[in-house]
Amino acid sequence: MRSSQTNSSDGRPSVSGTDLHLELRGPGLRAGLIKALREAVRSGQLAPGIRLPPSRSLAADLGVSRNTVTDAYAELVAEGWLTAQQGSGTRVAERTEPRHVTPAPSRTEPAPRRPLYGMQPGAPDLADFPRIQWLAAARRALTAAPHDAFGYGDARGRPELRAALADYLARARGVHTDPERIVVCAGFHHGLALMARVLKARQVRAVAVEAYGLGLYRALLTDAGLHTPPVHVDEHGARTDDLARLREIGAVLLTPAHQYPTGAALRPDRRVAAVDWARATGGLLLEDDYDGEFRYDRQPVGALQGLDPDRVVYFGSVSKSLAPGVRLGWMVLPEELIPQIAAAKDHGDYMSSALEQLTLAEFISSGAYDRHVRSMRLRYRRRRDQLVATLASRAPQVRVAGIAAGLQAVVELPRGTERSVVEAAARQGLALSGLAEFRHEPGGSAARSSEHDALVVNYAAPSDSAWAGALDTLCRVMP
Amino acid sequence: MRSSQTNSSDGRPSVSGTDLHLELRGPGLRAGLIKALREAVRSGQLAPGIRLPPSRSLAADLGVSRNTVTDAYAELVAEGWLTAQQGSGTRVAERTEPRHVTPAPSRTEPAPRRPLYGMQPGAPDLADFPRIQWLAAARRALTAAPHDAFGYGDARGRPELRAALADYLARARGVHTDPERIVVCAGFHHGLALMARVLKARQVRAVAVEAYGLGLYRALLTDAGLHTPPVHVDEHGARTDDLARLREIGAVLLTPAHQYPTGAALRPDRRVAAVDWARATGGLLLEDDYDGEFRYDRQPVGALQGLDPDRVVYFGSVSKSLAPGVRLGWMVLPEELIPQIAAAKDHGDYMSSALEQLTLAEFISSGAYDRHVRSMRLRYRRRRDQLVATLASRAPQVRVAGIAAGLQAVVELPRGTERSVVEAAARQGLALSGLAEFRHEPGGSAARSSEHDALVVNYAAPSDSAWAGALDTLCRVMP
Repeated sequence: MRSSQTNSSDGRPSVSGTDLHLELRGPGLRAGLIKALREAVRSGQLAPGIRLPPSRSLAADLGVSRNTVTDAYAELVAEGWLTAQQGSGTRVAERTEPRHVTPAPSRTEPAPRRPLYGMQPGAPDLADFPRIQWLAAARRALTAAPHDAFGYGDARGRPELRAALADYLARARGVHTDPERIVVCAGFHHGLALMARVLKARQVRAVAVEAYGLGLYRALLTDAGLHTPPVHVDEHGARTDDLARLREIGAVLLTPAHQYPTGAALRPDRRVAAVDWARATGGLLLEDDYDGEFRYDRQPVGALQGLDPDRVVYFGSVSKSLAPGVRLGWMVLPEELIPQIAAAKDHGDYMSSALEQLTLAEFISSGAYDRHVRSMRLRYRRRRDQLVATLASRAPQVRVAGIAAGLQAVVELPRGTERSVVEAAARQGLALSGLAEFRHEPGGSAARSSEHDALVVNYAAPSDSAWAGALDTLCRVMP
Repeated sequence: MRSSQTNSSDGRPSVSGTDLHLELRGPGLRAGLIKALREAVRSGQLAPGIRLPPSRSLAADLGVSRNTVTDAYAELVAEGWLTAQQGSGTRVAERTEPRHVTPAPSRTEPAPRRPLYGMQPGAPDLADFPRIQWLAAARRALTAAPHDAFGYGDARGRPELRAALADYLARARGVHTDPERIVVCAGFHHGLALMARVLKARQVRAVAVEAYGLGLYRALLTDAGLHTPPVHVDEHGARTDDLARLREIGAVLLTPAHQYPTGAALRPDRRVAAVDWARATGGLLLEDDYDGEFRYDRQPVGALQGLDPDRVVYFGSVSKSLAPGVRLGWMVLPEELIPQIAAAKDHGDYMSSALEQLTLAEFISSGAYDRHVRSMRLRYRRRRDQLVATLASRAPQVRVAGIAAGLQAVVELPRGTERSVVEAAARQGLALSGLAEFRHEPGGSAARSSEHDALVVNYAAPSDSAWAGALDTLCRVMP
């Protein structure tokens, strides 16, 4: 194309309409012409400084109206691709040296063979999301929503959702609250991130964490500038007697209903001891109630928060009860923290979709949430019973623990076999997590008291069709 | 009640079943009993240390099965309210001193009389949210969604939405991108917060901002530890010649399509100058394309990003085109920034709802988004024409500027009248913003070049029924 460029009367190169090889057909002629010209400049096909044909002649060459061409030129002048000067016509702007955008490489890894079955802890069975009921709730919520629901809204969340949650949490989890103490967030991680900022601003230096837990949360606290000394964990949950010997801690992160991932319920005297510690020191208990709804052998143990709403921050979400993809959670706060958390949230502008908040409010208020939790509880309980029974008959040498509640169980293994079992499972297409992944050992020996080899098995994750195969594979890789 | 407490054989106080005055009827007996007992302890009605009646006698007193009572006792022991010791019966735990939760005061301010009409900039007409079409898209999206859409998902956002956006932005805004360069966020504020963290990590010390803009965004940058020197603004947008004299700036925040709030489109030579500055210094241009879809007198000016996708970060959202309550936005990134932004986002775990992302993807792909934008564009244009015509006839002394695009216009006032006009409007029930609210004057004189008295009038915000009244009130308060 450059070879066909001629010199115009002022000695600078110009191009004729027929040189442009623009293909234009059908509706959207103007948009098509703009796009084609922009591409031609971007690719270097039209060089900087070159003069474009007068609009009249380009229009004739292309068989379009002159207005189409003048409009396109004007647009590209406005965008900075072309320049138009009295007497010198329309030219490609001098600075638009060609820039080739290399397509960004796909971030999808080159597909390590996807496991056939996944039993790693984290999510519930995603195939069971109640799509129809959720859509029905969305329809009712959206139809009834006041216009202001579509605006920016309150950082603390929609009042409809906070009211529905206050009622639900009191009824189902023994949480002592009113809607004013609830702040909606985008899941536990988001709530903890807000809390970390507020704690830091309150000059807290350290937040104690359970010696087994998600490294993700410890990292979040560490990145916020907080130390995370570990509290030992045994078969009765966190060893609250550790609290007295730790120095300068302003809060403790706990999973009282079902220690994550070992599965113990915090023993009653330790619940009381934790609250006593908080009262005596002015510290806070951060209660991660990630799966409190799912208890099988008796009704759920009520939230620790009920024991002292002024010292416990309660966190919950729909990630286990419904699906992580909904990204909605909640915090129930001591009164003094409400404005601080709301300000931290307002500042970050992490507000959840108002429409989705209204949908969840309607989903809870209509009873659909209770029905879903109840049906999943029966289902997970059946799964758990099958897991326990099958392992008892096919792998009697292992012990299954932490099974009274939740979505995962701990399968205790002979010492030294954890890694090889996880690897053997991977070879057979079953993704498993070893307990070692969850161990918090800043000094190397902190969690020593409860160290053992084990798997954390999420029996809730496989879909119905995958369950038998997953269970069979699990049994086959037992040592 | 305390007066009716008797001493048991071990000398410690006890209470009988008839003293408890528990009202229990209908289904949910066990839950009702647990709740009643928990309340009685919490309120101090049952004092610490007091012995509860044996389960058999309480069951007889209440006319319920003994199992109901033993279950309730066990639950409250597990929660830490009661203790059970061999031989000493069930007692109220010693430490549960009563805690009265004072209901947190409502954060809703004592209602300053709500204005009849609002014309402050920010949101579009919320009454026009396309509820039916949105629900239809949600139904299609949710029906078609793969199971994994309900999981935790990719920090960069759902692939369906990124693909739909890449196509839409290329077509409607001249953005040069592919889906891999797009990261979904929760609106411009969230995107800018992520960007500020990444810039800070890249050792950037300052981000230049337009001398008129939202203080909220400047505060966000400042709080991230970045300086925000101002760039002057005149009737052709940001004075890009300022950039050369500012020191140590690593990025510039710009509103090229429609300067916020003065309304100018960035002049073509300044678009080019901004890109040249970025190329010469290695700096970044942060393009806030908040209302690029709404241009009335000619087609929208394409995004600055198209001029150099490696130096411009493009930000857009549905806040003006659809509604802020949806809380979805997007960034189109230079390749080198993609992993950094994804990591920042992953870390903060603010992910937008997968379901809502899929709904927006479907809304865009189906053409509903284009139809909505087109219909709103006609509507806002009519509003703008009415505003201009009405002011021309009823207040010929004022000049209306910045009207070629967007949802707001600038009404220029005689010097020294801005504040009194805003106050007079408030007295008549019309909420207005003066231009002074948007002025950025760190040193006092930075924005001097374009200082004048004016109103920023959002003609898109009033609902149809409020529009005539809002416009009439506006004319009445003109000086």
